[in-house]
Amino acid sequence: MNNLKSIEELQGIISQAIEELDLPHEPSELYNPIRYLIDLGGKHLRPVLVLMIADMYELDLNKVMPQALGVELFHNFTLMHDDIMDEAPIRRGKPTVHEKWNTNVAILSGDVLFVKSYQFIVKTESRFLNKILALFNKTAIEVCEGQQLDMNFETQVDVSMSSYLKMIRFKTAVLLACSLKMGAIVADASDEDQENLYHFGIHIGIAFQLMDDILDVYGDQKDFGKQVAGDILSNKKTCLYITAYEKANIDQRKVLDYYFSHQDFEPKQKVLEVMKVYDAIGVKASCLEMMAENHALAIGYLNAVSVTKDEKICFV
Amino acid sequence: MNNLKSIEELQGIISQAIEELDLPHEPSELYNPIRYLIDLGGKHLRPVLVLMIADMYELDLNKVMPQALGVELFHNFTLMHDDIMDEAPIRRGKPTVHEKWNTNVAILSGDVLFVKSYQFIVKTESRFLNKILALFNKTAIEVCEGQQLDMNFETQVDVSMSSYLKMIRFKTAVLLACSLKMGAIVADASDEDQENLYHFGIHIGIAFQLMDDILDVYGDQKDFGKQVAGDILSNKKTCLYITAYEKANIDQRKVLDYYFSHQDFEPKQKVLEVMKVYDAIGVKASCLEMMAENHALAIGYLNAVSVTKDEKICFV
Repeated sequence: MNNLKSIEELQGIISQAIEELDLPHEPSELYNPIRYLIDLGGKHLRPVLVLMIADMYELDLNKVMPQALGVELFHNFTLMHDDIMDEAPIRRGKPTVHEKWNTNVAILSGDVLFVKSYQFIVKTESRFLNKILALFNKTAIEVCEGQQLDMNFETQVDVSMSSYLKMIRFKTAVLLACSLKMGAIVADASDEDQENLYHFGIHIGIAFQLMDDILDVYGDQKDFGKQVAGDILSNKKTCLYITAYEKANIDQRKVLDYYFSHQDFEPKQKVLEVMKVYDAIGVKASCLEMMAENHALAIGYLNAVSVTKDEKICFV
Repeated sequence: MNNLKSIEELQGIISQAIEELDLPHEPSELYNPIRYLIDLGGKHLRPVLVLMIADMYELDLNKVMPQALGVELFHNFTLMHDDIMDEAPIRRGKPTVHEKWNTNVAILSGDVLFVKSYQFIVKTESRFLNKILALFNKTAIEVCEGQQLDMNFETQVDVSMSSYLKMIRFKTAVLLACSLKMGAIVADASDEDQENLYHFGIHIGIAFQLMDDILDVYGDQKDFGKQVAGDILSNKKTCLYITAYEKANIDQRKVLDYYFSHQDFEPKQKVLEVMKVYDAIGVKASCLEMMAENHALAIGYLNAVSVTKDEKICFV
């Protein structure tokens, strides 16, 4: 039996590698913001997934370290640019790059970070390079398209559940799927395993995002560590809202339209009134079901992967 | 004797290939701006250089078309992001992307365009792929660093000629050099030829930029097609300004400081007063000499390339 490393061990390995990243110092306007953002930490989920797969196939983890660091730097690049576009003031409890410096710095540092991610990704054995690059390029484009769809939703009144699912698949799930598949490619796993892991990533990513939407409103504030119903307060179109809007009667739709198109409500009252509609329609159960469906699909794909159950226990 | 294609023929081939580019349509917020920017045209200098080298080595031009389109798309990506940072309202006589749409659109469309450039670049025969990618990544980082240096100069009082030369090398010359070397790599030219063509590109690029600076002030308005002395009016630190500032006496420096740190002068008067200082110091001759030195260096590198003189006549 394979003695799999724990997620904490893998996170430690990634943190160490990130700390040892040899970034240039000049021009400091480009490299200080990059260093600042990656030093804000985080769970390093994507590179951990790359390592996890390598571990599962009993591959030396150093062999996938370039791909792991590549996806982590790419993820940080998307954060830097998305934060500009979303006008986000705070990231992981600290000012975002465009707030601490300015928008130009965040644009150009982001661009450099993007190239840096490619510099790691290309450190791939020749026989895997074409496949890794095709996957990475496709994923990068989809992540950008996901961000665009997300921004479009801000002004779109009637967002369908299928466009919402496409958006979270592109914005969130494909990079998780890409991380898993990259690990599998470098581990020289069968094409079938690569595809199964990719689809596992897609559905687990969608399930996570749906759970995130649900917990924002129905989670325990202490456990979740975020402002309760931040998504409602910021008029965000989540799976809860979209389910509610699709199933609402005329009166309920009026309430949703009213609270999601105006500003300056008393926060508690707004959350209470919107949740009344959510509860009457039963959106929590409906979204939990959609989440569970995606989770079940994910597990199905994972079970189809050709390693023994003990070797993939980490995921479930 | 090789029957080399003319620049106009090569431009025609590139224009045709750009027209036939198969870009997605949705999300339209991402792809319409990309189509808009690349349809603004231009001389297609960089992809023409790639084709020219292929032609020089008697290689089928289709073999370097992905690299040619890759550098052209990359160049357009830098234009889209630079225009945001420089707050440029007009590009090739039309509104810039961030003016016609908005900054977010220009950021994200630019990001997608950048990935698209990689999608072409990776269409390289396996045996050349590592070298092509290493060159492209290094160049992309230098181009970003060049843009950062250029932005730093806006608020830097005393810019040295050596930092200025570094800036134009990174911002302008390295992509020309990269285009030439990419053509040489795919044509399977010797390492020596590849390096000579790269250095030819660096020095011809620097020479072109210095000439551009000189013509802005001393060129014939009709021929040059730009506002006379636009660089002086926008307080831009060019080789003329830097030469003048380095050689100025106390009184001349006061004049330069005065006109380059204040706004709202009568344009004609400002240009006249600054040019008086330029002429007294003799900056035109000094910059022409620096330009000629770089041109001579460029020709030296080109002469060292192992094809016959007739086959590289296009460049001189």
